[in-house]
Amino acid sequence: MNASAPHRYERLADLITGMIEVGTLAPGERLPSLRNISEQHDISVSTALQAYRLLEDRGVLVARPQSGFYVSHARPGALALPSRSRPPAKAANVSIAGVVATLLEHAADTTLVPLGCAVPDSALLEAHRLDRALAHAARTNGTAYNVYSAPRGELRLRQEIAKRAMRWGHAVSPEDIVVTSGCTEALALALASLTEHGDTVAIESPTYFGLLHTLEVLGLKAFELPTDPTSGVDVAALERLLATETVAACVLSSSFNNPLGSTIPEAGKRQLLRLLETHAVPLIEDDIYGDIYFGRERPKPFIALEGGANTVYCSSFSKSLAPGYRVGWVMTGALMPRIVERKFGFSLTSAVLPQVALAEFLTSGGYDQHLRRIRRLFQDNLARMTSAIEASFPAGTRVSRPDGGFVLWVELPKRLDTRALFDDALEAGICFAPGDVFSASRRFRHCLRLSAGHVWNTSIDEGVRKLGALAQAALSR
Amino acid sequence: MNASAPHRYERLADLITGMIEVGTLAPGERLPSLRNISEQHDISVSTALQAYRLLEDRGVLVARPQSGFYVSHARPGALALPSRSRPPAKAANVSIAGVVATLLEHAADTTLVPLGCAVPDSALLEAHRLDRALAHAARTNGTAYNVYSAPRGELRLRQEIAKRAMRWGHAVSPEDIVVTSGCTEALALALASLTEHGDTVAIESPTYFGLLHTLEVLGLKAFELPTDPTSGVDVAALERLLATETVAACVLSSSFNNPLGSTIPEAGKRQLLRLLETHAVPLIEDDIYGDIYFGRERPKPFIALEGGANTVYCSSFSKSLAPGYRVGWVMTGALMPRIVERKFGFSLTSAVLPQVALAEFLTSGGYDQHLRRIRRLFQDNLARMTSAIEASFPAGTRVSRPDGGFVLWVELPKRLDTRALFDDALEAGICFAPGDVFSASRRFRHCLRLSAGHVWNTSIDEGVRKLGALAQAALSR
Repeated sequence: MNASAPHRYERLADLITGMIEVGTLAPGERLPSLRNISEQHDISVSTALQAYRLLEDRGVLVARPQSGFYVSHARPGALALPSRSRPPAKAANVSIAGVVATLLEHAADTTLVPLGCAVPDSALLEAHRLDRALAHAARTNGTAYNVYSAPRGELRLRQEIAKRAMRWGHAVSPEDIVVTSGCTEALALALASLTEHGDTVAIESPTYFGLLHTLEVLGLKAFELPTDPTSGVDVAALERLLATETVAACVLSSSFNNPLGSTIPEAGKRQLLRLLETHAVPLIEDDIYGDIYFGRERPKPFIALEGGANTVYCSSFSKSLAPGYRVGWVMTGALMPRIVERKFGFSLTSAVLPQVALAEFLTSGGYDQHLRRIRRLFQDNLARMTSAIEASFPAGTRVSRPDGGFVLWVELPKRLDTRALFDDALEAGICFAPGDVFSASRRFRHCLRLSAGHVWNTSIDEGVRKLGALAQAALSR
Repeated sequence: MNASAPHRYERLADLITGMIEVGTLAPGERLPSLRNISEQHDISVSTALQAYRLLEDRGVLVARPQSGFYVSHARPGALALPSRSRPPAKAANVSIAGVVATLLEHAADTTLVPLGCAVPDSALLEAHRLDRALAHAARTNGTAYNVYSAPRGELRLRQEIAKRAMRWGHAVSPEDIVVTSGCTEALALALASLTEHGDTVAIESPTYFGLLHTLEVLGLKAFELPTDPTSGVDVAALERLLATETVAACVLSSSFNNPLGSTIPEAGKRQLLRLLETHAVPLIEDDIYGDIYFGRERPKPFIALEGGANTVYCSSFSKSLAPGYRVGWVMTGALMPRIVERKFGFSLTSAVLPQVALAEFLTSGGYDQHLRRIRRLFQDNLARMTSAIEASFPAGTRVSRPDGGFVLWVELPKRLDTRALFDDALEAGICFAPGDVFSASRRFRHCLRLSAGHVWNTSIDEGVRKLGALAQAALSR
C-alpha cells in the first residue's frame, strides 16, 4: 500500500461524508449496521468501525450505545466555539442574589418558551414509575417511614448510589455518602465544611449561578479561573493562583460544566489533583451532569482517579430523574464527619419517602435504559438548537459544543447586551439565562445560556429563532 | 355572706379535692358535667365552672376542650420544679456537634426504650391519611409536580399555613411564608440572614441542642440567658446583656421551650418585644410546639403580638404530624427577601410532593381533631411519666411541669453525672438525652430530658423506673 494513499477506512469515511453533503444521508438518519456496510463495501467489520469512529471524532456521526451510528444534527465548525474566558486575576465578593431570584421567577413561568432554567422537561422523566414507587411506599409503609431518617439518609438509597459509583470505578461504602436536599445542599455542606466566612474559593468561569449564590450567602470570595469551552479550567492559571494566594477550596465540574459544556480531559484532571494536593487545597466536584454523556463512556469524576479519594463529590438526581424530589448526595472520605455535622445544623435530615421511592426505582432497574433515552434526546435537542442558532443569530455568534448535558453557551458580538435582550425576550414570551449571572464579576454581558431540556417542538424552535432575530435587531439599533 | 367564709365555689372545690384524696375520684377520671354537678349541689353552672377552673389552676383537674374536666394524673407539688438556670454571663463558642451525633444515633435505635428523641410516635400521627394524600398526588399528578417548586414553596400549602396563623391572630400573606426543610432549616436560614460568623446570639438555657448545633456550624457565639422552668427567660438579664454587649439576634421559644417546657407569659413577651426593639435586636422565635398546648388557648407567639410583626417566626409539622416529611416554614416581614436568598443558596427549593400532600391534608380537615387527640395523649403521657419519676428517682429530684409539648426536664442531685448515667442506661436498653447537650457551656451535667412522645406502655413505664433505679444506684456508689 502506498504510504500517501488513503486507507480503506478513510475512503469509506469520505464516501459517507459525501453522501451527507449531497443529502443522501439526512441529519438524524441511522447508518447501515457495521455488518451490512462491510458486506456492501467488501471490507472487514473492523475497517468499517474505524471509518465510523473517524467520522464520530469529526462530529459527523454520533454513536448511540446499543443502537448504532447516526448522522449528527450539528454541523461542527459552522459556528466558532466561544472564547476561552479571561476573568480578572483576583478574588471578588459575590453579589448576584437579586438577579438570580428574578431569573428563577421568570424561569418558573410556564407561559414562556422554556429556554431559561436548566431543568429537564418532566414529560421526559420516569415520573410515572417513580411516583408509583412513592405512592406504593406511602400506602404500604407510610407510618414506618414517618420518622426522621438515619443521619446519613436511607441506607437502601445510599447502597444504590454506591453501586453506581462502583461502575465508574469508585469503590465506596454507604457510610461515605450522605443524602442531601439536592446538589445545592451538597455544595453548601461541602463549602461550609471546608471554608470560613471571607475565604477565597477557586471556581470555573463561567459557572453555575447557583454555586455563586451559595458562595454569596456563605460570605465567600470567588476567584474565577480562565476556562476553555472544550477542555475546562486552565490548570496553569490555577497553578499561578496557588503559588501566590491562600485558597480554601476549589470547586470544579466533573464533566459538562454548566453553562459552558466543557470537560477537563482525564490527564488534566490528574494534573489538577496533584497540583491541589501539593498545595493542600481541597477539591469539591459537581458531577450533576455526569450521567448525561454523549460519548462512548462516562467521563471519570475526580474522586475515581488516583489521588482523588478525598475529593468532596456532589451530585443529585435533579437533571436526570426527579427535580421535584430534591434528592442529592455528598460522597467523600475523611471529611464525612464534618459534612454530617453540617447536615444536622442546616436541615437535620432529608424527607424519607422520596428517598425510599428513588431506592425502589433504582433497585427495580430501568434507570440505565431511561438514561440512554434522555442522552439521545438531549443530544438531538442540542443539535437542533445549534442549527436554529446558526440560522437566526447575528454573524459572529459563537456557540458551545458540549459532549453532555443539555445547555448551550452562546457568545454574541461584544456590543450586544444580553440584559437588555432578556427584557426584549420576556416581552416576546421567551425566557433564557443572561450571561452575567454566571460570573461573580458580572462578566459575560454579551453571552447567554439556552437550555434544551424540553421536548423539541415548534414553539421552542421558533423561540430560538425569534431570540436570534431580537439579537439581530438589538445590534442594528 | 361573711367575708371570711369560703365562697360556694371554693367549698365545692374543697369537696372535690377531698374526693380525689380518698380515691373516690381516680386520676384520669372524668368529672360530672357542669350541668349535672350544679344540679347535684344546687348551685349555678357558673359557680360550678368557677370551682372547676380553680382546681384546674391548682393542677388538680385538667380541662379537655369539648370533652370536660378530668382528674389530673400529676400530683402537682409532689416534686419541686427544676431550678432557674444561672448560666455564665458571657458569650461562648459552641462545641457540641460530636455529642449530638452520638445521641441521635442511639435515639434512632429502635431496640432501646425511646426516651431520647423528642419525636412523636409515628403510630400517633395521621400518617395513613397523609400518606394517602401523597400517594394520590403522586399517582394522579406526579409528572406535573416533578419540577422545582415556586421559590417560596407550594402556594396551596402556604395558604393553609397563613389561614392557621390567622386563627391565632396573625394576618399574613402567603408571600411572607417560605417553606423549608423542617424547623432546622427555618432556624438556619433565619440565623444566616441576620448574623455573621463570630456574632453573638442570645438564647434560652437550657435550649434545644439542634439550635446549638446550627449556631456551631454557622460559627456563632451563644449567650445563654437565665431561664425559669415556668416563665421562661429572665427579661432583666436580657436587658443587662443588651445594655453592655452587641447581640446580633435573640432566639426564643414561642411556648413550651424544649427541654424545659417553659412559656413566657404574654406580658413578658410584650416587654421583651419592646426591649429588643429599643436595642434594634431582631427576634427569631421557634414555635414548633405551639399547637401542642394543654390549656384552654394556644399561647400567642411573638409575631402575633403588638410590635412583633418583624419577628422571624420558625415552625414545622415535625412534632404534630409528619417528622418524616421534613416540612417547616419561616414566616416574617421585611426580612423575607434575605430569607428567600438564603433558601436558594442552602437548598434551592424543597421537595414538591410532600408539600402537596400536606396542603391536601390540611385543606380536607381533620387536623384540629388530630391535634386535640394528641394534646390529650401527650398530657396523659407526661402525667404518667411524672408519676413514674416520683416513684423511682432519688430524693431531691426535680421535674418540670410543662403546659404543652411532650418532654420533661429532670434535675437530679448535683453530684449525679447524667453522662455516666447515659452509658448505664444504654446498657440497660434505655435511651434518654443527657443534660449537657442542651447548653453551649455544657452545663446541666446533673440533668436529663425524657421524651413522652410514644404511646404509653409497660416497657416505657418500666424504662423510666429502671432509669430512676440506675440513678439511685449511681448516687450510692
